[in-house]
Amino acid sequence: MQAVSPLAQRIAILGVGLIGGSLAAALRRAGAVAQVVGYSPNDDARVARALGHLDVACDSVAEAVAGAAFVVVAAPVTAMPELFAQVRDVLGAQAILTDCGSTKRSVIDAARRVLGDAFLRFVPGHPIAGSERSGPQAADPGLFRGRRWLLCPVDSTPQQHCEAVKRLLGTVGAQVSTLDPALHDKVFAEASHWPHAVAFGLSAAIAGGELAGQALEFSGAGLRDTTRVGASAPAMWADILLDNRDACLASAARFRASNEAIVAALEARDRDALLAILSTASRWRNQLG
Amino acid sequence: MQAVSPLAQRIAILGVGLIGGSLAAALRRAGAVAQVVGYSPNDDARVARALGHLDVACDSVAEAVAGAAFVVVAAPVTAMPELFAQVRDVLGAQAILTDCGSTKRSVIDAARRVLGDAFLRFVPGHPIAGSERSGPQAADPGLFRGRRWLLCPVDSTPQQHCEAVKRLLGTVGAQVSTLDPALHDKVFAEASHWPHAVAFGLSAAIAGGELAGQALEFSGAGLRDTTRVGASAPAMWADILLDNRDACLASAARFRASNEAIVAALEARDRDALLAILSTASRWRNQLG
Repeated sequence: MQAVSPLAQRIAILGVGLIGGSLAAALRRAGAVAQVVGYSPNDDARVARALGHLDVACDSVAEAVAGAAFVVVAAPVTAMPELFAQVRDVLGAQAILTDCGSTKRSVIDAARRVLGDAFLRFVPGHPIAGSERSGPQAADPGLFRGRRWLLCPVDSTPQQHCEAVKRLLGTVGAQVSTLDPALHDKVFAEASHWPHAVAFGLSAAIAGGELAGQALEFSGAGLRDTTRVGASAPAMWADILLDNRDACLASAARFRASNEAIVAALEARDRDALLAILSTASRWRNQLG
Repeated sequence: MQAVSPLAQRIAILGVGLIGGSLAAALRRAGAVAQVVGYSPNDDARVARALGHLDVACDSVAEAVAGAAFVVVAAPVTAMPELFAQVRDVLGAQAILTDCGSTKRSVIDAARRVLGDAFLRFVPGHPIAGSERSGPQAADPGLFRGRRWLLCPVDSTPQQHCEAVKRLLGTVGAQVSTLDPALHDKVFAEASHWPHAVAFGLSAAIAGGELAGQALEFSGAGLRDTTRVGASAPAMWADILLDNRDACLASAARFRASNEAIVAALEARDRDALLAILSTASRWRNQLG
């Protein structure tokens, strides 16, 4: 038991994979909440309980949510509409609901459609942390330390609820700020979702080529890094790309143009054109540190 | 001074950037050669000398090569024909010449054209190690430890010369093996050169888009890794891509097909097709560890 007084008696985490499991572990370590309970439709919650990340692995959404001051949905974006429907009927009158989805407009649309009056107590969220690994076995209580956690409230979301979620997430070391949901989805298509698609696409191209085995054998750090997130969970990423389809297609179009320009310069043996593209790339990437 | 007796009295390294500087530093640390000298057409050799990586920074190729048992060309592939021409006239009668170029067919063609009889003492090489950083400031004596270093001899290359280079490189911790030059270039187009082009292309697309600033601000580990080698030296990589053009265009065609298949699945909202590509990618990438 930590010396700090808990922010809440009970928090329920719905979906206890990498993100939900890491949040549970981090909250328990911080002593920020007296009791951290979780629910998952699969074995994840029991695994997380066995690993010491949860106080209780619940058998249903209703059991998990009962008495919880905060409910965090850390499930795939496609599972959220159904989870919201289950949460709606059991959410406490003062409880605050938030999520960890990588896209925000579709999650907000689903919440608005399903939650009824409880939509006013929904604070859309997105932790900018992750790993190509997944599941509660990969959970890490330090995953959010020093990392950004975005809240994407809509006009009707009360400021006080955002502040409550921000205090909660501050206890696990996250740097919390807000971003407009529509801009969020465009920025993350560009900075995360389409780059994942590129890593998947490059990995699939090599996997399907005649040199797939030799590429593994002679891989260096460049190939490993460029393709790293191509090892991520395929179903989760198919859903994220489909969920943020329009913004991803816009990012894809920019990438296609850039890729085709490199191919054209190479075909034409146009060193100046090639160097111009590579220099633009390198200047930008060097800003990333 | 180390306890081991040196393999050679003197080694000359022509081009003292990341690779040449790291090799110099590693050889000095290993005590494998009594004297490590270097030459560069720019300040790199003097910088490497000041950093303690070289015993002597020479003022010319002739000064560096005189009396050297091994000569290692660690210059950009485009600079090699001219360097070979300078080496030819001063290479000792027993000296062995090797290179560190990322492509092999064009380097071998240049060596065959330029070196005359000394071509029999040329052992084409390629260390599978690197960094997005460059220059002697980035040199690391541990760069080659446990990493592969490929030798790509042609039919006329004497086995004893390959063995001599292998013993030398073993002292810096490299795992030396041989690969056919033509296969080498195809494998490295697939496993290194085109993946670099993809990282450059993705970086250039983001750099040229309206969200370039926000993508930097909200970047996570996924974007950082996928684009990391996009920060590499543009001129060096333009030359590598042009030098290995045909194999790179073959890899580019496979990548384009894979990328277009992802875009098409997304446009058609075809989750099964998308999942199939992402699963192929993830299975292959997970073999890379």
